[in-house]
Amino acid sequence: MHNMERNELEALTKLVISCMNKETQKGNGFQVPVGVSNRHIHLSQEHVEALFGPGYQLTKKKELMGGQFACNECCTIVGLKLRAIENVRVLGPARKSTQVEISSTDARKLGINVPIRESGDVKGSAPIAIVGPKGAVYCKEGCIVAARHIHMSPADAAACGVSDGDYVSVKVENERGTTFNNVKIRVDESFTLEMHIDTDEANASEIKQGDKVVVIK
Amino acid sequence: MHNMERNELEALTKLVISCMNKETQKGNGFQVPVGVSNRHIHLSQEHVEALFGPGYQLTKKKELMGGQFACNECCTIVGLKLRAIENVRVLGPARKSTQVEISSTDARKLGINVPIRESGDVKGSAPIAIVGPKGAVYCKEGCIVAARHIHMSPADAAACGVSDGDYVSVKVENERGTTFNNVKIRVDESFTLEMHIDTDEANASEIKQGDKVVVIK
Repeated sequence: MHNMERNELEALTKLVISCMNKETQKGNGFQVPVGVSNRHIHLSQEHVEALFGPGYQLTKKKELMGGQFACNECCTIVGLKLRAIENVRVLGPARKSTQVEISSTDARKLGINVPIRESGDVKGSAPIAIVGPKGAVYCKEGCIVAARHIHMSPADAAACGVSDGDYVSVKVENERGTTFNNVKIRVDESFTLEMHIDTDEANASEIKQGDKVVVIK
Repeated sequence: MHNMERNELEALTKLVISCMNKETQKGNGFQVPVGVSNRHIHLSQEHVEALFGPGYQLTKKKELMGGQFACNECCTIVGLKLRAIENVRVLGPARKSTQVEISSTDARKLGINVPIRESGDVKGSAPIAIVGPKGAVYCKEGCIVAARHIHMSPADAAACGVSDGDYVSVKVENERGTTFNNVKIRVDESFTLEMHIDTDEANASEIKQGDKVVVIK
């Protein structure tokens, strides 16, 4: 290759990289605090009563964002291979349908295949048995690994330049250094700005509850 | 105390001990092999189908005495405190009612109070949840620690000089050296001579499956 050609190529390359960087700059600097979700259970009121007794109401242990709360109540979950994880926290309030959210590490412990799904999308997800102090229920589906996502208010979405349903990438600047791609944006008036990841993602990327990540789109 | 009185007392004591020993000799020398029962589950056919699927039949893994068999099927049990013991063996054939037999060590692991009961006497016994690959059942009672007992044929009972429902003591001659009292005799034509103890009793008395003990009544 001649020198002239190489110089031109280098100039062109710089130009392309510059454009790419400008593209990448979109949303840059928009920081999002992280919430790390441990395994937990959402129950329908029917299942609350099956597991804890007729007329039973979940009781609040700790407020969470979006009107949710960690309950005093726990259940033990058992997967298809009959392996158990004991005392999994229930989150309130009761929902329309029961959903068990575990990490992939938990799924391996249980010896079952659990799909990565958005909350609420449980069709065809893994079967799971839930045992409470007054009963046991067997869910033919409802066990998922939660897909990473960011909760935002409409104002936050505007500031970040994203819309409900968009997918972005998120950069973690720390010793390990990780970029999470395919992070879904979920916008609702009731949402507090927070990226939700599970314990595997937190451990893999050296993130603690409340650490901040940056949207790079 | 005068010497004369002491001599008389010693003589009397020897006489009493001699009489006691003669009494103790009854049944002596009658040896019984020991069967050590690990934790296991007896299921009703209704519960077999609830846990393994409609129409399901238990499958034989290994013949046991009295027409019973260890099944290929296992279940996971969960107690009131939501602690679990995984993959507990089911014994066949299906029975009239479900019964879970665990050791006191298991009961401590589960964090529940489990009464010592004869097989079949489950009224007011501990509640237990049973989880299979296709379902879960919650038993309000049915979890017991099995009371030690000896199965005998009528011929064995005659040879030993005992009757159905008698209680005897049983001596274990080994390094630890243990006598089990309050051992119930159960006589039936279908029974093979065997003393049934659980893993705690076996461990406490240094007994292995097939070891022999002696009835001392």
